[in-house]
Amino acid sequence: MRCDRLWRDARLATLAPGREAMGVVEDGLVASRDGRILYAGPAQDAPTFRPGEVIRCEGRWITPGLIDCHTHLVHGGNRAHEFELRLAGASYEEIARAGGGIVSTMKATREASVDSLVASALPRLDALLAEGVTTVEVKSGYGLALDAERRSLQAARALGEQRPVAVKATFLGAHALPPEFSGDADGYVDLVCDVMLPALAGEGLVDAVDAFCEGIAFSPEQVARVFEAARAHGLPVKLHADQLSNLHGAALAASCCALSADHLEYTDEEGAAAMAASGTVAVLLPGAFYFIRETRVPPVDLFRRHGTHLALATDNNPGTSPLTSLLLTMNMGATLFRLTVEECLAGVTREAARALGLLHEAGTLEPGKWCDLAIWDIERPAELVYRMGFNPLHARIWRGA
Amino acid sequence: MRCDRLWRDARLATLAPGREAMGVVEDGLVASRDGRILYAGPAQDAPTFRPGEVIRCEGRWITPGLIDCHTHLVHGGNRAHEFELRLAGASYEEIARAGGGIVSTMKATREASVDSLVASALPRLDALLAEGVTTVEVKSGYGLALDAERRSLQAARALGEQRPVAVKATFLGAHALPPEFSGDADGYVDLVCDVMLPALAGEGLVDAVDAFCEGIAFSPEQVARVFEAARAHGLPVKLHADQLSNLHGAALAASCCALSADHLEYTDEEGAAAMAASGTVAVLLPGAFYFIRETRVPPVDLFRRHGTHLALATDNNPGTSPLTSLLLTMNMGATLFRLTVEECLAGVTREAARALGLLHEAGTLEPGKWCDLAIWDIERPAELVYRMGFNPLHARIWRGA
Ligand SMILES: [Zn+2]
Ligand SMILES: [Zn+2]
Repeated sequence: MRCDRLWRDARLATLAPGREAMGVVEDGLVASRDGRILYAGPAQDAPTFRPGEVIRCEGRWITPGLIDCHTHLVHGGNRAHEFELRLAGASYEEIARAGGGIVSTMKATREASVDSLVASALPRLDALLAEGVTTVEVKSGYGLALDAERRSLQAARALGEQRPVAVKATFLGAHALPPEFSGDADGYVDLVCDVMLPALAGEGLVDAVDAFCEGIAFSPEQVARVFEAARAHGLPVKLHADQLSNLHGAALAASCCALSADHLEYTDEEGAAAMAASGTVAVLLPGAFYFIRETRVPPVDLFRRHGTHLALATDNNPGTSPLTSLLLTMNMGATLFRLTVEECLAGVTREAARALGLLHEAGTLEPGKWCDLAIWDIERPAELVYRMGFNPLHARIWRGA
Repeated sequence: MRCDRLWRDARLATLAPGREAMGVVEDGLVASRDGRILYAGPAQDAPTFRPGEVIRCEGRWITPGLIDCHTHLVHGGNRAHEFELRLAGASYEEIARAGGGIVSTMKATREASVDSLVASALPRLDALLAEGVTTVEVKSGYGLALDAERRSLQAARALGEQRPVAVKATFLGAHALPPEFSGDADGYVDLVCDVMLPALAGEGLVDAVDAFCEGIAFSPEQVARVFEAARAHGLPVKLHADQLSNLHGAALAASCCALSADHLEYTDEEGAAAMAASGTVAVLLPGAFYFIRETRVPPVDLFRRHGTHLALATDNNPGTSPLTSLLLTMNMGATLFRLTVEECLAGVTREAARALGLLHEAGTLEPGKWCDLAIWDIERPAELVYRMGFNPLHARIWRGA
């Protein structure tokens, strides 16, 4: 059988669903044709291939390319100085006076052109790619006005054109209340639902719709309106839920068949069960938990008991998670949330694909999917989770090349 | 004035002692000759140089090359599987039966040749160098027998020959009790003091002597004997102290004028004051704190109040800190221990040099010191501490090249 490329002498962690122990194959091979996986499995069960190119992996491990399913990579400005001031003992008021907080990111994002948003996001994206990421989700949500949200989503699309990576663009207009709508959250939600979303969806800039359900952001009722508008445009939804308090965001997301609910530190058993029933993925974000020094961990045992799918993501953003490493995210998932090695690795591959509605295309090593691979210089997959600040990536393959 | 190389259009964080705000120079210049700094300061105050080569830094920041003053980079084996088993719920007994724990590292280290110790340490060292490290301390302490300790120290020396980096080799024979001395810690300390140290020091393999003072390791009395033997050989000492309990290790280290006492989660005010008085540097190791999920933080406020010098290091080791990033170490120092940006950056430059007895040669941008530089693509030094899993190093200069 003809194939374009053949990776042999490899150990595979296929992460195929229903397979135990990460779907490990000790003497494995992967064959690709036209950018998709033709075969991934034991060498001894493989058909005879006539490959255009053979790559000997010398016992290295191949996993699915990593997927970061929750990022705010596109944003203007830099909050390092705010971080510095806070460590030096500045109060929130002093930081606000010095131009800190989410409003500072909003202002910088509003002032930025598409090109400058792309230029500032590229080093962050490149850091992810250097660790084997082949698919990344990018949210808007720092523009908080039609034009700036459009530029953010255009920048997300441009990232996918300038680098060999699949980018999923999420409209997060309901991220925070912009100052010009102070005291009128409902009015801003009207704008999101009636003006911004129709325009941006009409321009083909939106793959999914997200919102931030929290006391400091939007109420469940307001989120439900955003979700309704998304449904009217045939767009899947996801939700920043239960990060700082339990507003029953997880259950709300599940009731709307959201792809994912994210954060979830305060989610209760009802929410976990509802997510399991609806197939809504629990996206845990340990980088934000670590960076803002939360003490309440998400209810991992409840998710396990109910069979809720668990994913992990960087939540890369300037305010609460300036993190650009999925490897470190896995370590944090294990160290801080006590996820197992398999949960961590599935969480940045198979379950991250599921959280993006991409499980039919990516996230596992299975025939028919995109041939997105990460090839690692490791002795066992646990090393990807165990080490901190170490990148054992040998090669990254996107769409077979 | 003739110089070999001239870096101009740079912003400097000189970290020179007594200078405020990291010794920042906005329009700075560094000149080198014969591997040493000839000038580092404002361009306008500089003499007229006739440089062999000019490097335009385009506004990038130059800091001293980073210094990792506490590592166990040289060791055999890999404890990723133990980490995996523990997350999967295995008990310590089960892990011990599966060959885990420090004994597994000791066995792997004893079985390893110098070449294989070097080969396994090089990727870890390279990860450090990729972030601008120019000096690194490497401890023995997993051999726990003369030959294996010798091979470990020889491997440390070899690392410094195979890479452009200064390596300080520390003899840590009193790291743990090897199984063949079970029940006879004093007998093992005799061996360390009377056989191992004289032999290894005589071979020129030892730059300093370290010990682990803890209930699970060696008593203050045993440590004092090791320190006496070190003094007899004219070697400086340092101590793993007060990590899991307060055995007054910090005060012991200070009373022996140790270069540093390291860990210090349980150090009390007396210990902090004694260290300040003796000039013993407090080396904080947030990677180990994070990885083993400690909850008691070192008494940073006490150290500040008494003027104890504070350094930060990776403590890279397979059991409690598989960390190979000083940038991440700084972030952990800030996030977990609430160190300021300046304390973090000084902690991996000036104070780390002090902790190695190298402050006259390295750790700041001052004339006469080695020209070890890290050049960064950042807008302000706080970014080095703020970001997680992001490496903005533009260039690393060691000894002027
Ligand atoms: Zn987010
Ligand atoms: Zn140590």
